[in-house]
Amino acid sequence: MIMKKAKAAIVGSSGYTGGELFRLLLQHPRVSITAVTSEKSTGQPITALFPNLTGFTELLCESLDPDKIAKKADVVFLALPHVTAQETAFRFHQLGIRVVDLSADYRLLDPAVYRQWYEHDHQYPDLLKIAVYGLPELHREKIKKSVFIANPGCYPTGAILGIAPLMKNGWIDPKSIIIDSKSGVSGAGRSPSLTYHYPEVNEGLMAYKIGTHRHTPEIEQELSELFGDKITVSFTPHLIPMNRGILTTIYAVAQKQVDVGQAHALYQEFYRNEPFVRLLPLGQFPNVRNVRGSNVCHIGVTLDPRTGRVIVVTAIDNLVKGAAGQAIQNMNLILGFEETEGLMLAGLFL
Amino acid sequence: MIMKKAKAAIVGSSGYTGGELFRLLLQHPRVSITAVTSEKSTGQPITALFPNLTGFTELLCESLDPDKIAKKADVVFLALPHVTAQETAFRFHQLGIRVVDLSADYRLLDPAVYRQWYEHDHQYPDLLKIAVYGLPELHREKIKKSVFIANPGCYPTGAILGIAPLMKNGWIDPKSIIIDSKSGVSGAGRSPSLTYHYPEVNEGLMAYKIGTHRHTPEIEQELSELFGDKITVSFTPHLIPMNRGILTTIYAVAQKQVDVGQAHALYQEFYRNEPFVRLLPLGQFPNVRNVRGSNVCHIGVTLDPRTGRVIVVTAIDNLVKGAAGQAIQNMNLILGFEETEGLMLAGLFL
Amino acid sequence: MIMKKAKAAIVGSSGYTGGELFRLLLQHPRVSITAVTSEKSTGQPITALFPNLTGFTELLCESLDPDKIAKKADVVFLALPHVTAQETAFRFHQLGIRVVDLSADYRLLDPAVYRQWYEHDHQYPDLLKIAVYGLPELHREKIKKSVFIANPGCYPTGAILGIAPLMKNGWIDPKSIIIDSKSGVSGAGRSPSLTYHYPEVNEGLMAYKIGTHRHTPEIEQELSELFGDKITVSFTPHLIPMNRGILTTIYAVAQKQVDVGQAHALYQEFYRNEPFVRLLPLGQFPNVRNVRGSNVCHIGVTLDPRTGRVIVVTAIDNLVKGAAGQAIQNMNLILGFEETEGLMLAGLFL
Amino acid sequence: MIMKKAKAAIVGSSGYTGGELFRLLLQHPRVSITAVTSEKSTGQPITALFPNLTGFTELLCESLDPDKIAKKADVVFLALPHVTAQETAFRFHQLGIRVVDLSADYRLLDPAVYRQWYEHDHQYPDLLKIAVYGLPELHREKIKKSVFIANPGCYPTGAILGIAPLMKNGWIDPKSIIIDSKSGVSGAGRSPSLTYHYPEVNEGLMAYKIGTHRHTPEIEQELSELFGDKITVSFTPHLIPMNRGILTTIYAVAQKQVDVGQAHALYQEFYRNEPFVRLLPLGQFPNVRNVRGSNVCHIGVTLDPRTGRVIVVTAIDNLVKGAAGQAIQNMNLILGFEETEGLMLAGLFL
Repeated sequence: MIMKKAKAAIVGSSGYTGGELFRLLLQHPRVSITAVTSEKSTGQPITALFPNLTGFTELLCESLDPDKIAKKADVVFLALPHVTAQETAFRFHQLGIRVVDLSADYRLLDPAVYRQWYEHDHQYPDLLKIAVYGLPELHREKIKKSVFIANPGCYPTGAILGIAPLMKNGWIDPKSIIIDSKSGVSGAGRSPSLTYHYPEVNEGLMAYKIGTHRHTPEIEQELSELFGDKITVSFTPHLIPMNRGILTTIYAVAQKQVDVGQAHALYQEFYRNEPFVRLLPLGQFPNVRNVRGSNVCHIGVTLDPRTGRVIVVTAIDNLVKGAAGQAIQNMNLILGFEETEGLMLAGLFL
Repeated sequence: MIMKKAKAAIVGSSGYTGGELFRLLLQHPRVSITAVTSEKSTGQPITALFPNLTGFTELLCESLDPDKIAKKADVVFLALPHVTAQETAFRFHQLGIRVVDLSADYRLLDPAVYRQWYEHDHQYPDLLKIAVYGLPELHREKIKKSVFIANPGCYPTGAILGIAPLMKNGWIDPKSIIIDSKSGVSGAGRSPSLTYHYPEVNEGLMAYKIGTHRHTPEIEQELSELFGDKITVSFTPHLIPMNRGILTTIYAVAQKQVDVGQAHALYQEFYRNEPFVRLLPLGQFPNVRNVRGSNVCHIGVTLDPRTGRVIVVTAIDNLVKGAAGQAIQNMNLILGFEETEGLMLAGLFL
Repeated sequence: MIMKKAKAAIVGSSGYTGGELFRLLLQHPRVSITAVTSEKSTGQPITALFPNLTGFTELLCESLDPDKIAKKADVVFLALPHVTAQETAFRFHQLGIRVVDLSADYRLLDPAVYRQWYEHDHQYPDLLKIAVYGLPELHREKIKKSVFIANPGCYPTGAILGIAPLMKNGWIDPKSIIIDSKSGVSGAGRSPSLTYHYPEVNEGLMAYKIGTHRHTPEIEQELSELFGDKITVSFTPHLIPMNRGILTTIYAVAQKQVDVGQAHALYQEFYRNEPFVRLLPLGQFPNVRNVRGSNVCHIGVTLDPRTGRVIVVTAIDNLVKGAAGQAIQNMNLILGFEETEGLMLAGLFL
Repeated sequence: MIMKKAKAAIVGSSGYTGGELFRLLLQHPRVSITAVTSEKSTGQPITALFPNLTGFTELLCESLDPDKIAKKADVVFLALPHVTAQETAFRFHQLGIRVVDLSADYRLLDPAVYRQWYEHDHQYPDLLKIAVYGLPELHREKIKKSVFIANPGCYPTGAILGIAPLMKNGWIDPKSIIIDSKSGVSGAGRSPSLTYHYPEVNEGLMAYKIGTHRHTPEIEQELSELFGDKITVSFTPHLIPMNRGILTTIYAVAQKQVDVGQAHALYQEFYRNEPFVRLLPLGQFPNVRNVRGSNVCHIGVTLDPRTGRVIVVTAIDNLVKGAAGQAIQNMNLILGFEETEGLMLAGLFL
């Protein structure tokens, strides 16, 4: 029973997302990694960048040459900074290669919104039109038919999955949404800076980019589509002294007279067939440790009768469901594989 | 120039608050510690419980005998669990000793509220009437005249200081207040349990007691008094993998047409003369690491024009301004010392 | 192509080793988990103990009844405390079930040594005689023929793999061996106690059981066998504020005139065909992060010309190569599977 | 009772040592800080570099101009990189200012050894001759008479204090000394780099510079002086995921027939009058948490009868007794203050 494997390339493999893609694809039964690119480490083994891969691969990093890579890849994962990704994505798309772009460049449907938040023009509005926002829980059918996926941001994944059932069903006051997120440090990437220097982070805790984080319009875009009208949210990210994980605490005023059991049932129904969303039993709430290294999203729901607010908590691994894992989930869908192929890994717990 | 020192006893010295009281009082120029009690460690040196004190003290733990302790103390700090503290506090008060009670037993003015949240009757409603809620920034003059202080909870200290200026000046919709707090693990006390077992906490992150935490009524009591009418808030605590510190993120809808500069000025005015409240420059926000080991509260304020919300972030060390340090601040006030005596310590930074 | 899966039971599944066995076996293509036992949690879903497994299994914990379990298992993993495991292991063995015992009870060949270090008599010396010490790198052929495996301790795994090439080849003064180990906290198990209470461990660092740790005779037994004479070592474990991982730094005086290149070559030769031992390039040394979640052991070797000492550093994940992973490696061998089946997972890196 | 305070300048105040000097000097009753220098932050408030100081000082960073600073300082602390410090130290010394140099530049008495390990010539061998190695426990009387102190390195402080009593009394085989040290990350300084990027350190553990660390000759110099002949040691530092603290585990072969009680008594006698060395009770061993933020060194001693080795464990805070605290201790001595002035702070415990 020999099955021909799909060939995947990882472009921009020196960062955490690139490394995580490699780690996960290594154990994917239907994919082989044929190329990894890194401008700074061209010619070096990928194990020099990620010693955890020692003995698992002999691949060398190469310089990014889309023509060359297109010849040996069926699908390419772009783990590049935003703006930079715009053109590379376009090139690969033109070359007929399926693209999963993990940057922010093709997530915002409206180029004007992109310009406003990213302070750059979008050079490829036509490609932007065909890009699909790769959150399978909302857009599975579109993703399956697509060849170009804009992989969601880490914060939006946790936030949107937490709010979607309420929004879709009109349960909450759309003006009342507050999203308080707490992220591990790997979300900030692998470039050293004083802000992420170990002793500056450890035993510390802070909010940052209050009301101004670039993931805000992404959340608003998806919630607005679900709601059918424009939504504005308060979104505050916090930096937590841990490596992986995002916990998102969501507050919204209930518009319906509902009890906590009904709220829980709403989520159960909404996510009934989802392979990667786990609604926790009533009264239980997520902990990021339970999803570490895993592609699942844990959700807990309650309703505070004193204040009339629905409070939802979600947990994801920012590098897996928030990045590399979801990218592979999208790859599975666009290549016609089983959606869960290579991804049914339980969290590490510790 | 010989100055007679006040004599202080620490009752319930085996927990983190007891240990922190000892550490701070050791460097207080006007106090000597004359007794420490611990039922489990009676007869043992306090250094067996807190090896960091090795060489700084020879004190032995004794069993709690109020009559005996009253003879050698001018002021007693009660670091006992709630309910237990009720009677001990009463006994010391009757013996004419000044009391700073760090438990929750005398914080809630209304015994019915106490019963509702703590599921016990209050046995000493008369003492409750004379107890003063020991948040000097709100009740300094009352504290100075008092002999019995109910030292505030850790979460309420950070929350109330963050909201007071808005509440006092009617700037916000009183129904819109959301308090999202993140605490280090020392706040959970020193009794081992699976929940706080190292590998269960490290690299983890969770919300707990959503909408049901016992510090909620304490926050509501103080805000209601400032506002002049009953306030209900959403309060969610989170457990963060670090030892010390509480970061509190507060959201409220602005009722006035104000800009961020005005908001900042409001706080500057409100806390102008406060020795332990530090309003950060506009655009800067607190990090708990900057207040570690210190009695100060850092505050950052902004206003999100997109959503019309005021967002305030406060940082305290839960064991200092949130417990032992504030208790000593209160002691300074009731003994007529300089309020900052022994407490002008900068945070550890790292 | 339907392959009948082997049936595995995990006895004592509430601890970290039990949980890790479950996590790893879940992704093993040739095994299904048919039973998990826990006396305290009988009747509860295993997901109540390990929420990371939510959605991956519906198994309920059962009480330990060897007869009942023997009917549904081909192999049983014992994750029980020492002494307790003695009899349970014996029972399963008598029932004809293959046993991988993760306790210390059948590791020490000499019952007198067991008595000396564990302060209990060994009740089953006959079974002890047939038990095989399950370090495949040293005893592969014996393991393959065995039905009863004593799975090595975590510290001994890292220490023995680090010293074996030197010992086997007579390169070092056998009296000069010093083993300085540093372990994450999961090695201490899941029972809460003050010593492992989060705030007592975090930002702390200590040595413990200096010269008296029970893993010492296990290391000495294996090194003595390699050397052909009795060896005594200095072994000092340290507790490190992290969840997983053991780094072992080994010092020994070189007896031969060798250079660092020869030392490296010795290891390369010794471990040439080992699937789970990775000798790092000359000049590189291991970091536990690179083996987290993985069954590999990383080794770095140097030779200090100033002191004439060989210095070897090894890194393993104490829960994987130091416990559950190695147990599955042993299971693969005794069931005739490919040795690496289900275990070719790269470390998590972060 | 007005006491004129000594004036202190901190040169190179942007790093962790500079910040710690500021924090500690702030609470020193006999010193005022009159100047802080930072080339990168000239003109900025020191609170921009260390927000923990907010509200405690209004000082602005200035550019390093020795003439200018000499006019306002009685003593200057140099927290500069090695090599750079050479000339600055010389300038201040020529200007008649007392100098406590926290760099490595004046620690090694022999310029040839300096050249060998630091790969630079020493430009000021004459000043080197008058510099005193500032470990008060060994050189108190010389320090008192000196105006130029070479403040010891962090690792050497913990190592030398641990070995001195054995060395001085000829108890151990001088060829058998192994020093295995474990340090928190602040020891690596404040310059961001990938090695110290938070996610690369957290949950990781590694040895580094095995047998080649520059603190080695400093340890050997002091031990050789105590022993009366040249000593060579094995020294291996490790990086631990925590902010502060060094734990040093020392192994040496006993040359005398002694028992553990005698070993303990030796240390007790040696350090009887030392204000900052705390010998722990027999059977107890240090934990870095107990000295965090404090100038004390904790020591535990044992003797392993199986191997005939003395094993000593020491704990210091690398930023305090290992740097800024010891520098202030030296300052106290050279200014004729009480040696413990401003330094009797118990460790933070958590």
